[in-house]
Amino acid sequence: MSTAINTLIEQWKQAVVAKDVEQIVSFYADDIVAFDAVTALQFKGKAAYRAHWQACMECCPGPGVFDFHELHIVAADDSAFAHWLAHCGGSGPDGVLKTCWMRVTAGYQRINGQWRVVHEHWSAPFDMETGTGLFDLKP
Amino acid sequence: MSTAINTLIEQWKQAVVAKDVEQIVSFYADDIVAFDAVTALQFKGKAAYRAHWQACMECCPGPGVFDFHELHIVAADDSAFAHWLAHCGGSGPDGVLKTCWMRVTAGYQRINGQWRVVHEHWSAPFDMETGTGLFDLKP
Repeated sequence: MSTAINTLIEQWKQAVVAKDVEQIVSFYADDIVAFDAVTALQFKGKAAYRAHWQACMECCPGPGVFDFHELHIVAADDSAFAHWLAHCGGSGPDGVLKTCWMRVTAGYQRINGQWRVVHEHWSAPFDMETGTGLFDLKP
Repeated sequence: MSTAINTLIEQWKQAVVAKDVEQIVSFYADDIVAFDAVTALQFKGKAAYRAHWQACMECCPGPGVFDFHELHIVAADDSAFAHWLAHCGGSGPDGVLKTCWMRVTAGYQRINGQWRVVHEHWSAPFDMETGTGLFDLKP
């Protein structure tokens, strides 16, 4: 089961790198509950999360760096979860590459024989004093 | 299995409200990987996460508000994951109660017959423009 989840994560990652929103959301369950790193407390359902992905792809240049590290998968017959660190970044208008590390947790279920992402949680930690994101932390 | 996880979450929550660090960490696996909302990218292992909990309890007055909402559990025989929204808050030195909503995801495994938390992820989303935490969002 870990192999199936590992393959799903790799294919999903490639869809993000390709900025292919249809392909990205093809891995999501209809009733996915997503806690993304930005903008809203949660996105409930594939349509809402799809709209958020679309907005992100339109506002940002897309990841020039999008690497996953320390991936850990716990899989059962019909459900699984995984967590990893994502090294993300891209070049701004000035051409300078900026990267940061994010934390990712995802939950999966096999629905009608197909593994689907039913939950996704992306975040960066914040500084308790200032309330600002800590984007310069490294693992 | 969902019932066992539900009970674990409720007991763990009561330990946090009681500010009982020993009791809080008693639910964690030795090799827990925790993505907390503040301070560090990750805490690896029970000892590191215990030290973080101790520091948090010493610096903060402890939660006056600590309620869980929209809890969703997906459980298999020996592993499970859950996600929920946490309404957290406390009174500062001025006596004014401040609350915010956090997102939580947790992973569980049955180890030697005992359910343990093997992964925990707490966060608040941030504003993409300013990089500051969005602590005034409501579900």
